[in-house]
Amino acid sequence: MALIVQKYGGTSVGGLNRIRRVAQKVKTLAEAGNQVVVVLSAMAGETDRLLRLAQEVHPDPDERELDVLLATGEQQSVALFCIASHAVGLDAHSLLGFQAGLLTNHRYGKARIELVDALRVHELLDQGKVVVVAGFQGVDEDTGDLTTLGRGGSDTTAVAMAAALKADVCEIYTDVEGVFTTDPNIVPEARKLERISYEEMLEMASLGAKVLDIRSVEFAAKFGVRIHVRSTFTDREGTMVVPEEQIKEQLIISGVAYNKNEARITIKGVPDQPGVARKVFTPISNAGIVVDVIIQNTSVDGTTDLTFTVPKTDYKKAMGLLSTVCSEIGAKEVLGDPNIAKVSIIGIGMRNHAGVASKMFGALADEGINIQTINTSEIKVSCVIDEKYTELAVRALHKAFGLAEGLEPAAEDI
Amino acid sequence: MALIVQKYGGTSVGGLNRIRRVAQKVKTLAEAGNQVVVVLSAMAGETDRLLRLAQEVHPDPDERELDVLLATGEQQSVALFCIASHAVGLDAHSLLGFQAGLLTNHRYGKARIELVDALRVHELLDQGKVVVVAGFQGVDEDTGDLTTLGRGGSDTTAVAMAAALKADVCEIYTDVEGVFTTDPNIVPEARKLERISYEEMLEMASLGAKVLDIRSVEFAAKFGVRIHVRSTFTDREGTMVVPEEQIKEQLIISGVAYNKNEARITIKGVPDQPGVARKVFTPISNAGIVVDVIIQNTSVDGTTDLTFTVPKTDYKKAMGLLSTVCSEIGAKEVLGDPNIAKVSIIGIGMRNHAGVASKMFGALADEGINIQTINTSEIKVSCVIDEKYTELAVRALHKAFGLAEGLEPAAEDI
Repeated sequence: MALIVQKYGGTSVGGLNRIRRVAQKVKTLAEAGNQVVVVLSAMAGETDRLLRLAQEVHPDPDERELDVLLATGEQQSVALFCIASHAVGLDAHSLLGFQAGLLTNHRYGKARIELVDALRVHELLDQGKVVVVAGFQGVDEDTGDLTTLGRGGSDTTAVAMAAALKADVCEIYTDVEGVFTTDPNIVPEARKLERISYEEMLEMASLGAKVLDIRSVEFAAKFGVRIHVRSTFTDREGTMVVPEEQIKEQLIISGVAYNKNEARITIKGVPDQPGVARKVFTPISNAGIVVDVIIQNTSVDGTTDLTFTVPKTDYKKAMGLLSTVCSEIGAKEVLGDPNIAKVSIIGIGMRNHAGVASKMFGALADEGINIQTINTSEIKVSCVIDEKYTELAVRALHKAFGLAEGLEPAAEDI
Repeated sequence: MALIVQKYGGTSVGGLNRIRRVAQKVKTLAEAGNQVVVVLSAMAGETDRLLRLAQEVHPDPDERELDVLLATGEQQSVALFCIASHAVGLDAHSLLGFQAGLLTNHRYGKARIELVDALRVHELLDQGKVVVVAGFQGVDEDTGDLTTLGRGGSDTTAVAMAAALKADVCEIYTDVEGVFTTDPNIVPEARKLERISYEEMLEMASLGAKVLDIRSVEFAAKFGVRIHVRSTFTDREGTMVVPEEQIKEQLIISGVAYNKNEARITIKGVPDQPGVARKVFTPISNAGIVVDVIIQNTSVDGTTDLTFTVPKTDYKKAMGLLSTVCSEIGAKEVLGDPNIAKVSIIGIGMRNHAGVASKMFGALADEGINIQTINTSEIKVSCVIDEKYTELAVRALHKAFGLAEGLEPAAEDI
């Protein structure tokens, strides 16, 4: 007997028939003698619908009230799921965020879970019930206000519940079969990974492989929650996201990620003085623009070039702000290019292997792809290239590192 | 400065434009220096939509989960209303049932309010905010489960809040202009009453004049809450529902009510023995059929006739049950008529006036309408007649008692 937390996303509960199917699936698991906690998202499209309603009455809706509104999506899911469960003979019991003890801070719209008081959930499990928790929502422990965790928040709800309950596994059901070595739409030979470490998953997630919400992976890493990413629509095993020490395979690279949603900006001839970077990034940050990669090279003749990327949607706004900043700091000029992409290779194996980066650069060079910028972390190398070469680059890297073949990981403790 | 509780029904908040209009209306009141608590229903049609969804997944949905589902209707209303309020510059703050301290028992779907802990509402009012409370919902004080109060429950929420806050008045906004002497669709001269007593309102409500939920009137009577029933769509005064001693007018009859939703059943030749009535009504009640009027006359030759009414929708079921009962108790036969109507005259004035009933019988006789049964309470006389004469009877009674003219009530303390 195991204690299993399962999270089903909006597509998995998008419609009454799908809800029925998931209820049947949970029933099978419960009847096999497992204790099951189910975390649900809102039905597909519902959160967007509510958001549109709010924006129709106010262009910038109050965040507290918006959370009250958006929380109804998950509330409807859990109630309908439990009603459907009873129809198939499953004893399911819904809990809203405040009832499940999901206590958060008061940052409406992007609240952080501070504490999970799982007493009630434990009681219900002990009574033999399947507990169905509304994802995405919590309650401010000071005021009793409803809060929401932001997009993808139901993943975090599931992982937090799994941590609090010391669950054996947290299964995240989605519309893909797991985490792949790269996007199968670009590389048909992309291989589903049997296991991936938290660190790699974080890099994959933040680089645009949108399988898991990044905060849920951080949470899982912190509390050692084993995540199983898998498909609602098949029974095949998906990908386990686990601590690094549980990964025994010797692959250097686990995956190739790409991100086409950013634009590159370069300020040329920046005076190499203390405080200049602050002058550049303060107005950008005040405008709510999130800067990703920042690269500054050693200065030559007292000036340097500063390159960074911003979301494509913020590109024009950023360029406008920087034309002022440029003259203020006495820089030479601001150049920008919205038509770029970032391709990255990710793998904990590269820590102990020299030559990974140069192999990457060689593979790109062989295809005639120019590298605009390079930056690296301990388990990742990213290059900014011309956007039009994205697919070509991803295919070349996938091949160069032999990801389609892979080694079968030594499954030690599944 | 007054403390005013206002309740707006589903039609009043049915659509974003209407929500905006109500927000503007509340703003005017608040800017005049009043403290305002607004209680909202779900947007028109939403509760029915959710109910249909639930019934699609289970013919008889679990009551606890159904309440979780239905409560989202009011939750969406209050959030959208507050967002719209901010757009017109009104500082509104939503509270769900559990946040507003609406503590109920655990009878899902028809919970009774046990206690209103209005501390939070008071705090927010003191901060100069308009407090917007989700109607229809509460929280079980023992388990923390969401509960709903049943159809029309938002009226009760408003009256309970008004009682707890010792509000100056509880305004119930609806799509009619107040309480009329009778249905204006039948009698165009029907007059809007300026005042009506709780007792009369209870009789009117239970007899089919669906302006106010009957439980809200009982609540108001118990705690002396002054209710003002009025239209969302005009600024005209509606009808005050107040304690009897605040009514100074000398009219004998306040209104004529009718109810076409019942069917009459008569058991003839019932042996006049102890326990017979119980044998008749126990199977009826076990089948969930609500019996309204019961009339039994003095027995002749050791048998009597027993007449009662049931909802038209339960008529066939009741007749089926009674054919068995009839032979068990040795009664002669069961006769039934689904094509009947009940017409009633209501008025606290009739307590001190003889001849009211005979005037009623005379008015019906003058129109050639046969009276099938008669029953009376202290402030009401009801007759069952052939359904096809309903409108004729209502018009005749309205005229006979001079209701169109009326006396102007002596307004003592409006």
